Amino acid sequence: MIELTDSVAKTMKEFEKLPGVGKKSAERIVYHLLKTTPDEAFALADAIRSMKENVRYCKHCFNLSEEEVCDICRDERRDRSILCVVEQPRDLIALEQTGCYRGLYHVLLGRVSPLDGVGSDQLTIDALVKRVKTGDFKELVMATNPTVEGDGTALAITNRLDGAAIKITRLARGVTTGSSLEFANKEMLSDAISGRQQF
Amino acid sequence: MIELTDSVAKTMKEFEKLPGVGKKSAERIVYHLLKTTPDEAFALADAIRSMKENVRYCKHCFNLSEEEVCDICRDERRDRSILCVVEQPRDLIALEQTGCYRGLYHVLLGRVSPLDGVGSDQLTIDALVKRVKTGDFKELVMATNPTVEGDGTALAITNRLDGAAIKITRLARGVTTGSSLEFANKEMLSDAISGRQQF
Repeated sequence: MIELTDSVAKTMKEFEKLPGVGKKSAERIVYHLLKTTPDEAFALADAIRSMKENVRYCKHCFNLSEEEVCDICRDERRDRSILCVVEQPRDLIALEQTGCYRGLYHVLLGRVSPLDGVGSDQLTIDALVKRVKTGDFKELVMATNPTVEGDGTALAITNRLDGAAIKITRLARGVTTGSSLEFANKEMLSDAISGRQQF
Repeated sequence: MIELTDSVAKTMKEFEKLPGVGKKSAERIVYHLLKTTPDEAFALADAIRSMKENVRYCKHCFNLSEEEVCDICRDERRDRSILCVVEQPRDLIALEQTGCYRGLYHVLLGRVSPLDGVGSDQLTIDALVKRVKTGDFKELVMATNPTVEGDGTALAITNRLDGAAIKITRLARGVTTGSSLEFANKEMLSDAISGRQQF
């Protein structure tokens, strides 16, 4: 029984380790790479290597950065009295793209999830508590995901900050702008009613 | 408006070029790579690079190979009087996995497909014709895919070999083993009837 050549089989195996890439997709990707010019395939290999060599987490906020301190933490124009807590760098990017928030961030690099074996000690919560207690923040905005785990994480952080003189807020919840009430589920509607705002 | 760091954005772009990988999947893959150990990410980068450096097409049959001549063409035990024509290396592997075929192969590296701009000159048909005319083959098995394009490719090859003293056969077609007649379509059933075999 013949098999693929060693390096083809190895490359497929490496691709299969990626999230969302199964055996068939890995095969398709590898055949694609075999057909492209060497430069195109090398560009991918080099991008992965250089990203892994250069990208680290900002030492203050744990955002992705190619420097010790990220662009946002270095930016003098940001409001240094308000701190927004997010789960992942991609959440930070989503918030930044709205252009509505001008404070600083803290990236947890995950959420508390006992079922997946993620405790609060594996996240950057210790660093956050230290940052809040030694810093000069007036408000902490919880922008963890509106899920059971996201809420649990926010609660764990609030408990840890018990006694700190800081206002803790969370993102508004309710019906989705642009959608229609009939498609909203019970949780969304009850959030929308209990958090109703003056017109 | 903030963006990802340069090397993260570049890696995402490179992943997006792969077949079946969209913007969201590329993002997921890149965040996964950022979280893994450097060794895991480097393993992927190195596998791609080394595959692209080492894998080439066999000079006889155009199968994937890390040597000038592939394992099958080098194998003394293979039947050198019969040649099987397939579209892609993966078709060769599928046939090999049955263990039923012990002859040699010729990989076309594609199929004639005028709509995609693939003419017979872009495949390895010239090499195949030369191989058949100068070689000592008794039978040529067409194992192109049972599609309009696969059949067209087989026909184009047959025309090119007009006059060569070689028996040309193609894979049997009919109902799928293990399936049920009621799910067979008209083409499958008409192939099955016209190609009926003695019981």
